[in-house]
Amino acid sequence: MATYTPQKSDKFTFGLWTVGNPGVDPFGGAVRTPVTPVERVRKLGELGAYGVNLHDNDLIPFGASATEQDAIVKEFQSVLAESGVVCAMATTNLFSHPVFKDGAFTSNDPKVRAFARQKVMRSIDLGVELGAPIYVFWGGREGVEIEASKDPVTAAKRFRDALDFFTEYVLDQGYDLKFALEAKPNEPRGDIYLPTTGAMLGFISTLAHPEMVGVNPEFAHETMAGLSFYHAVAQALEAGKLFHIDLNGQKPGRYDQDYRFGQEDYKQNFFLVKLLEDYGYDGPKHFDAHPLRTSDPDDVWEFAKGCMRTYLIFKDKAAQFNADPEIQAIWRQISVRDAVLDPILDGKYSPQNAQTLKSHAFDADALAAQKLPYEKLDQLVFDLLLGVR
Amino acid sequence: MATYTPQKSDKFTFGLWTVGNPGVDPFGGAVRTPVTPVERVRKLGELGAYGVNLHDNDLIPFGASATEQDAIVKEFQSVLAESGVVCAMATTNLFSHPVFKDGAFTSNDPKVRAFARQKVMRSIDLGVELGAPIYVFWGGREGVEIEASKDPVTAAKRFRDALDFFTEYVLDQGYDLKFALEAKPNEPRGDIYLPTTGAMLGFISTLAHPEMVGVNPEFAHETMAGLSFYHAVAQALEAGKLFHIDLNGQKPGRYDQDYRFGQEDYKQNFFLVKLLEDYGYDGPKHFDAHPLRTSDPDDVWEFAKGCMRTYLIFKDKAAQFNADPEIQAIWRQISVRDAVLDPILDGKYSPQNAQTLKSHAFDADALAAQKLPYEKLDQLVFDLLLGVR
Amino acid sequence: MATYTPQKSDKFTFGLWTVGNPGVDPFGGAVRTPVTPVERVRKLGELGAYGVNLHDNDLIPFGASATEQDAIVKEFQSVLAESGVVCAMATTNLFSHPVFKDGAFTSNDPKVRAFARQKVMRSIDLGVELGAPIYVFWGGREGVEIEASKDPVTAAKRFRDALDFFTEYVLDQGYDLKFALEAKPNEPRGDIYLPTTGAMLGFISTLAHPEMVGVNPEFAHETMAGLSFYHAVAQALEAGKLFHIDLNGQKPGRYDQDYRFGQEDYKQNFFLVKLLEDYGYDGPKHFDAHPLRTSDPDDVWEFAKGCMRTYLIFKDKAAQFNADPEIQAIWRQISVRDAVLDPILDGKYSPQNAQTLKSHAFDADALAAQKLPYEKLDQLVFDLLLGVR
Amino acid sequence: MATYTPQKSDKFTFGLWTVGNPGVDPFGGAVRTPVTPVERVRKLGELGAYGVNLHDNDLIPFGASATEQDAIVKEFQSVLAESGVVCAMATTNLFSHPVFKDGAFTSNDPKVRAFARQKVMRSIDLGVELGAPIYVFWGGREGVEIEASKDPVTAAKRFRDALDFFTEYVLDQGYDLKFALEAKPNEPRGDIYLPTTGAMLGFISTLAHPEMVGVNPEFAHETMAGLSFYHAVAQALEAGKLFHIDLNGQKPGRYDQDYRFGQEDYKQNFFLVKLLEDYGYDGPKHFDAHPLRTSDPDDVWEFAKGCMRTYLIFKDKAAQFNADPEIQAIWRQISVRDAVLDPILDGKYSPQNAQTLKSHAFDADALAAQKLPYEKLDQLVFDLLLGVR
Repeated sequence: MATYTPQKSDKFTFGLWTVGNPGVDPFGGAVRTPVTPVERVRKLGELGAYGVNLHDNDLIPFGASATEQDAIVKEFQSVLAESGVVCAMATTNLFSHPVFKDGAFTSNDPKVRAFARQKVMRSIDLGVELGAPIYVFWGGREGVEIEASKDPVTAAKRFRDALDFFTEYVLDQGYDLKFALEAKPNEPRGDIYLPTTGAMLGFISTLAHPEMVGVNPEFAHETMAGLSFYHAVAQALEAGKLFHIDLNGQKPGRYDQDYRFGQEDYKQNFFLVKLLEDYGYDGPKHFDAHPLRTSDPDDVWEFAKGCMRTYLIFKDKAAQFNADPEIQAIWRQISVRDAVLDPILDGKYSPQNAQTLKSHAFDADALAAQKLPYEKLDQLVFDLLLGVR
Repeated sequence: MATYTPQKSDKFTFGLWTVGNPGVDPFGGAVRTPVTPVERVRKLGELGAYGVNLHDNDLIPFGASATEQDAIVKEFQSVLAESGVVCAMATTNLFSHPVFKDGAFTSNDPKVRAFARQKVMRSIDLGVELGAPIYVFWGGREGVEIEASKDPVTAAKRFRDALDFFTEYVLDQGYDLKFALEAKPNEPRGDIYLPTTGAMLGFISTLAHPEMVGVNPEFAHETMAGLSFYHAVAQALEAGKLFHIDLNGQKPGRYDQDYRFGQEDYKQNFFLVKLLEDYGYDGPKHFDAHPLRTSDPDDVWEFAKGCMRTYLIFKDKAAQFNADPEIQAIWRQISVRDAVLDPILDGKYSPQNAQTLKSHAFDADALAAQKLPYEKLDQLVFDLLLGVR
Repeated sequence: MATYTPQKSDKFTFGLWTVGNPGVDPFGGAVRTPVTPVERVRKLGELGAYGVNLHDNDLIPFGASATEQDAIVKEFQSVLAESGVVCAMATTNLFSHPVFKDGAFTSNDPKVRAFARQKVMRSIDLGVELGAPIYVFWGGREGVEIEASKDPVTAAKRFRDALDFFTEYVLDQGYDLKFALEAKPNEPRGDIYLPTTGAMLGFISTLAHPEMVGVNPEFAHETMAGLSFYHAVAQALEAGKLFHIDLNGQKPGRYDQDYRFGQEDYKQNFFLVKLLEDYGYDGPKHFDAHPLRTSDPDDVWEFAKGCMRTYLIFKDKAAQFNADPEIQAIWRQISVRDAVLDPILDGKYSPQNAQTLKSHAFDADALAAQKLPYEKLDQLVFDLLLGVR
Repeated sequence: MATYTPQKSDKFTFGLWTVGNPGVDPFGGAVRTPVTPVERVRKLGELGAYGVNLHDNDLIPFGASATEQDAIVKEFQSVLAESGVVCAMATTNLFSHPVFKDGAFTSNDPKVRAFARQKVMRSIDLGVELGAPIYVFWGGREGVEIEASKDPVTAAKRFRDALDFFTEYVLDQGYDLKFALEAKPNEPRGDIYLPTTGAMLGFISTLAHPEMVGVNPEFAHETMAGLSFYHAVAQALEAGKLFHIDLNGQKPGRYDQDYRFGQEDYKQNFFLVKLLEDYGYDGPKHFDAHPLRTSDPDDVWEFAKGCMRTYLIFKDKAAQFNADPEIQAIWRQISVRDAVLDPILDGKYSPQNAQTLKSHAFDADALAAQKLPYEKLDQLVFDLLLGVR
């Protein structure tokens, strides 16, 4: 049996808030007292994690003075160095304080919008100070329950104005920092704007500096809407926009569960890992999950170990899939080639090509009779994943 | 009481397949024999519709000869002219024939991909001949049930290659035609690629001629995934990409119901109509719905009348909303202005602006205490919509 | 215009926790300080509410001494009397304290199960002391995220043992109290046992004293699973098991939103109110909702007023529906009678009846051609609800 | 490696309609011509299936004469005998013909209701003639899209009247036949009455002969509503009402997919099989699924083989789970026993027991600190299922 031991090169990361989650939910309070951020870094380093991520207020309490911040940062930097753990991503908490109860960038109140910009700029500075190369934007409160309370067209403009402002700020400061936008369909707002990874990709194309901005898809968020996370990630990756990824577990059509990576839908997660590995995604693999409310402090670390182990098991299975003779034989069988048509289909448009296709004689019924043994293929995948091949 | 009589200027359109739906579903066969396409046009014209839309095979049977096609087109053009009904949109049927059972543009078989391109080019020619200014692409079979059977990255490239080919074809032919891409999350495939309007907007930004391509959002399709259709349309509209719209009814998280416009979620549909009217959307309003399987031929026309009537009722309610003193007073109250901050927030980035925002002193608790009477506001909307104000 | 003023006879009730909700959610803390329970009763009384409901710990802090409890109860009883407000329902908080993090009646730990029974017995005593005729059981923590952690068959037995124990306790004490079981599919647990009103009805039939136990269906809970709340209530009502009802607002397939009654799905709520009124449901109508997190204290009371007003508007619309000549004419048309068959269908089984039906000659095609003008009918309902008839 | 070869004692069954599905869906027609029912029986027998199930019209065309029926039945009985395949279940097609477009037992038209009863009685006779011990009722058209068109309370009464009539018919005829009710939330109707297995259990308790009636839960149907099929089956089983089971695959919140058993949600299906095996369910295991529309005739049989193989793999994994020392050690750890409390909790109510529990001193905080290593446990399950333990 393989040992599935995490390596730094696997680039596994955890948000400080993930292993630091105290177990609060809408129907009950905290069930455990997390260890300090410094202790979390140490332990994650021991377990083989590559990096940590943080919101400004995961490290620096809301309203802390510059002096307090400096002391905290100094200690944190030194534990990062000691532990061999990097700060892989930073982001802003624009959702916990009541000031953001109706949104940050899309609030109707200019003072709130301005305060949000201030908080982001300061937090970007902090992220850069800690060495984070990626900055995530999750607009958890940018939405509505009451449609009469906001104009969605105005909200889109305000969101864009904020993003354009921040890209200019980064350029102005000479920071080497990319942005990754994270979508979520709902919760904590009734409907959150730009609810899917696709919506974010569309939005990015309207920005002043689209080249600086990609996406941070999250398994739970796409899955909440019953959408295929695997397909969303593939679209982002194919478009060169997969800057970061949030891995966790979730059942469709429910509250945000943020389960351990791999807890739900083994098959989809297998194909997801296969996609990332086959296409050489080399950004961080962030386990944006939290331990169950039933977990005691020991079980929190079992949770963290499980996320990484599961990824490595799927990675191993992906290699098996790519080497499986029977699976690969079916793949070759269904990957039909055509010496005449392939060059036209793969090539550029020309009037001649158009004419060739337009006048070609096809036997639709014969084409429809082509064998596609997909039941057999999927059963082979099942057997492979269950370890019975 | 207003009469809510449709006018040509309302630009209400119906697909030939909508009022022509025979009532087949997965558990039962046809329940009614639709009238001919020609009769559908005549009746829709009488009811006040502006136009009709069609798939190639709604009018021309699959495999018809050129001579047969010419005769059909000629008769159809003459009934359009007589009835004062335009052909407002055309599209291709790439889903009914078994040849497309595993997709058209994304099929693994180059012959199927080539045949799909041929069918689209011929169908574009037909659409242009009938005067359609918009051409819709709905890739109903472009997806999978078995992830091992297709590579989603390759599928994306093939989809793009096809679209880029067609824009070149249109330019080459000198056609005045725009494309509108229609997303759907699933059904008839387990998962359809590019499942949301947002995903389509993202995809469009990667095309060779994005300026020729917009979206055709459909209420039922966005709603099947439990997403806000209203927000999706707002994003498309704000991005200048709302080229066409499909209006109907649907409950979230279910099979594709394609109900009469307005049958479900009155409030969302009200805000949708308000959005289209407030922002002067002037494309066709297409009722891409079908009568219930219980409907007899008379009820089919009640269905068509109901779609248009409902739109006009919501349009009237939107005008009431915009004129309602109490609602507008709350709107002014929550639309805060700030003489210092607004110019910075609305203006371009400058180091000075950044510095001003970064150093501004905010009282977050005071800002959080701002009154947002949204329960009251939504109750006023309820009263207005229910006709009790 | 009608004034839609709540009357005591409307039996509108509010949980103390509804108007007392401080606005905590998984991503942010409290946004308002609720007034005391005593103040809530006073204000609700002024607004026309008939009664209040409470969990033990809404009134009596967890762990309070008997002396403290007595003082609190005394004050509370006196404000109820002064305000003309009754305690219409009581229930137990078996979800907030970490001891219940893995369930109460279904916990694997006998000490937790025993503690839950103690808490319920004491809370039943409190409810009876306050005059509550109905006792609700909502097993919010009775479920799992990890299926390996509990046996669902054992869990069902433990749930039943607890309920049977409590009915015996009530009989033993001579209390005049009925139980109402409230289902929820998920949240705060990944999956909650007995997830629907239907599941509760099935469960009740296995209890020792089914006659003492009915259901408390909640709009949000049934709707979270995309099920028809209206149908669930109809099943319970028809079975004589509708002992209590929780009215609020919710979009399908999302986190528990607990919106203001009527905020979502106007049409379904209209039919729900019509059902309750047509069939003379005379239990409390409990608005188990909470104000939005954006609401300030004034808006909290707008929320409460809105719930009651909305119910009364729908009640008025239901009367209009029952009196509408065109709607009623269609109803009579589709409510076919048959002098031969009706007595057999409505009567008891007999071999003769069976033989008559078995040998009767039916013309299935002719029957299939029966007109069912449901598109027209639903449009009339739309017009009536929108106030344009 | 085990061979996972189906045995008759596994009681695997297939509906004639499953392997006979021609691949029609709402957007396209048939893609393959199924072999005859007789050939299906032969092939299923060869593959190791125990039995077949059928709707009346799967075997006997709608409207066939008695003579035609006799000839078909005779041939079918002889192929059953030759093939060693039993008829394990029969049911009625009350959904395909347009006469049932608005329901069968709940139609507003007494002629339709009467015709439905006739069709059921004749079909029961057929089922009994073929030796089926179980008769399934799936009311696919018993529902609405337009709530104004039916009264749900009346519909419930009509449904009950029909069921009560049929139990009397069975008793009267002296048949040894049990009924199993199958729930589905929607499709082909907008909302189907009695939408969940739980709702059916509740309904059964209101019947005249509840002892003759159980449920037939279907994976796809419960999963469409995002509910736990595993929990629904457990409730039915614990109540002694699991008379039959339909196994297949489905993603939540979508159209009825009826995928191969095990295609989706490996973990839930594992626990489902474990439940059936641990509790000795000995009814038929019916694979009520259909091959993909992409499948050619050979792939149809791969589909059938895959369903059975998958069940046997999960059965094997369940045995591993029950024998796994580490998993069982955690199970013992969390299955706490208490010498004082267990007898009270497991025993009957007595005033003394009540008093003991009521006055017992509990340390809630200490109880809350009990270790529940569920992350670790679930990771062990993952490892076991993936074959890496």
